[in-house]
Amino acid sequence: MKFGGTSVADAERLARAARRIVAKREEGHDVVAVLSARGRTTDALIREAQEISPEPDPREMDMLLSTGERQSCALCAMVINDLGHRAISLTGSQAGIVTDTSHTKARIVDVRADRIEDALRQGHIVLVAGFQGVSTARDVTTLGRGGSDTTAVALAAAVGADVCEIYTDVDGVFSADPRIVPDARLLPVVSFEEVLEMAASGAGVLQLRSVEYARNHGVRIHCRSSFHDEPGTVVVAEQETVVENPLITAVTHSTEEARVTLKGVPDTPGVAGRITTALAQANVNVDMIIQNEPVSEGQRADMSFTVPRTDLADARRALEPLATEHGVEIATDEAMGKVSIVGAGMRTHPGVAAQVFATLGREDINIEMISTSPIKISCVIRGDKVPTAVRALHAAFALSGEGTIRQERPFGEFH
Amino acid sequence: MKFGGTSVADAERLARAARRIVAKREEGHDVVAVLSARGRTTDALIREAQEISPEPDPREMDMLLSTGERQSCALCAMVINDLGHRAISLTGSQAGIVTDTSHTKARIVDVRADRIEDALRQGHIVLVAGFQGVSTARDVTTLGRGGSDTTAVALAAAVGADVCEIYTDVDGVFSADPRIVPDARLLPVVSFEEVLEMAASGAGVLQLRSVEYARNHGVRIHCRSSFHDEPGTVVVAEQETVVENPLITAVTHSTEEARVTLKGVPDTPGVAGRITTALAQANVNVDMIIQNEPVSEGQRADMSFTVPRTDLADARRALEPLATEHGVEIATDEAMGKVSIVGAGMRTHPGVAAQVFATLGREDINIEMISTSPIKISCVIRGDKVPTAVRALHAAFALSGEGTIRQERPFGEFH
Repeated sequence: MKFGGTSVADAERLARAARRIVAKREEGHDVVAVLSARGRTTDALIREAQEISPEPDPREMDMLLSTGERQSCALCAMVINDLGHRAISLTGSQAGIVTDTSHTKARIVDVRADRIEDALRQGHIVLVAGFQGVSTARDVTTLGRGGSDTTAVALAAAVGADVCEIYTDVDGVFSADPRIVPDARLLPVVSFEEVLEMAASGAGVLQLRSVEYARNHGVRIHCRSSFHDEPGTVVVAEQETVVENPLITAVTHSTEEARVTLKGVPDTPGVAGRITTALAQANVNVDMIIQNEPVSEGQRADMSFTVPRTDLADARRALEPLATEHGVEIATDEAMGKVSIVGAGMRTHPGVAAQVFATLGREDINIEMISTSPIKISCVIRGDKVPTAVRALHAAFALSGEGTIRQERPFGEFH
Repeated sequence: MKFGGTSVADAERLARAARRIVAKREEGHDVVAVLSARGRTTDALIREAQEISPEPDPREMDMLLSTGERQSCALCAMVINDLGHRAISLTGSQAGIVTDTSHTKARIVDVRADRIEDALRQGHIVLVAGFQGVSTARDVTTLGRGGSDTTAVALAAAVGADVCEIYTDVDGVFSADPRIVPDARLLPVVSFEEVLEMAASGAGVLQLRSVEYARNHGVRIHCRSSFHDEPGTVVVAEQETVVENPLITAVTHSTEEARVTLKGVPDTPGVAGRITTALAQANVNVDMIIQNEPVSEGQRADMSFTVPRTDLADARRALEPLATEHGVEIATDEAMGKVSIVGAGMRTHPGVAAQVFATLGREDINIEMISTSPIKISCVIRGDKVPTAVRALHAAFALSGEGTIRQERPFGEFH
């Protein structure tokens, strides 16, 4: 079971999460629960760090941020102990989450769950501080935003859990963000592949890395609300989901994109490679890349790419030495957005892209960059056009209609 | 260097502590700095725990409370890194502070400082989260209130530091609490033995356990203000302090005392022993004990003792089974205080006690219990009489007068 920040935000919600955990234990299950930091704790800590340091040291940032989840777990364990069960809280390190040394964006390299398994054998409920681990250099690390999902999935894989339940403040995975599209439909079952594309293109419910990890380790994810008992969304392998795939499953979006344009990149072999290498070394997640070919041999080209807005400062820093060396100008635009449609049925329907472009065109929305996969089409547009684009696409593909409901596996089989 | 909670309470103070640490490094010293949680962080966390649990589980309390110091250290390390030095923060566990398993009151059983020494060899400034360690059962523990002083002294001993500087919000050790006695005198040098008695009898500047540890391991303590550069108070072995001891060094007090009275204790061998054993097992610090002998053989006696008010609930819980078994009534009084005079010169002046009793008598203050050591006389009195008693004793022994200034060792020798 994993509880997000809003699900443990105050004493009352923490107690509700504790009761849910206890109820699951009383059904006879062994329970490991991963908790996030309460409410806006992590944001407050980041703000404190930024107040005293213009660019806080990443190692120390991790030491600072990892405290929020520990507090949630300790408080929740107290409540569970008061309910007559025995709970122990563990830090990421104590839980055996071993990571690389990429502070603030660490990746899990090993899960040594023997301490958790010992505690389960003793009949304990185990609470684990999410979002964190210990590096191979014995330092506290964090897994990046939303890393608690990854903690939960990694532990579910390590202990061979029947299911990894992700409790959150939304009811499950929707056909679009209900704040933008009020008649968006809750998806009862969705495939790993679709959720991966949705997470990659801005859907905030499940974190990309956690879904990847779940797919690779065969962990069944059940995403549901911590506030009521509705069934939510189950994420399973594609072959388990359907009799026939719907054409489009969801419209996703992001307003957190930034574009970097490098003007006058010399048309010399290796320069583009050095640029992407520099970005990778700085741990910047590059999304789309466009390079305008030079008009004639020996001329310079322009190169544009998008990154999460939070990575923009890192990207600029990584590129500046190269830009100086090659006389390249760096321009940035922080007001970009992205709208995407995702659906496993797209594989067999080539006309979808044309329908997307036509829909956005009717709304006078300019498409600045495009990227596609077999089950996704993404368009970079101006950030302020995103809500209009999402609503138009959701309507164009009739995603709120009854006709798109897919056949579901019964829930009773696995939880 | 150790910085208390008020010395790191906000961004500005944290930056001041960071500059002090850097200045010391730039003088050419290797620096290990122990930090407390900022301001009232620990109190706020305790309040949160008490809101959700009537008696929070001690193991989880430690997991919760240990986060405050980690935050201070991480933030301070960020500032030091920005000042062009390389600092790393370590948790108590990472710093090698190994304790027993007495949660919320753990005792240090080993200090494995190799990670600190490695970091110092690499030229790093090392920041250590005070007040905490890791138990022999691999759980996070805390050392009890004021435990950061103990962390600092233990690390100073382990790495063979020249001096352990305790930075605080007061200017040093005074002849009495300046809030009660405005003309109290700052003591430039004081002996371990005197400071031990002062700490045991309520002076809050230095924690008893840390001074004991320092005496036993020969660690020189320098207690000074974090807000200015005045010399403060140095604590050294008695033989180093003086040409001739003053009669009385200081008047100390406490208003945090509670009295427990056991009425009708059977006059049977072993009962008193079982009472004190039960209290010791509950980790209750008993201060003074008085037993009224029964008037005749086979009768029952009354037994009174004082404990810190914070230990009263534990004391009652520890005694209830015994009381039920032996038909003993437990009465408690939470409004007690204690006033003490401390001075190494007392050893050779037997008339001091009489002067204390006469002084308090003149103020109409009833002495309820008395305990003495060769260099201390303590009187338990009503809590509301404490300020009057302190002022009367400070005046009676002329502690603010010039005549009591002792000869000092020059400061330059050891810092």
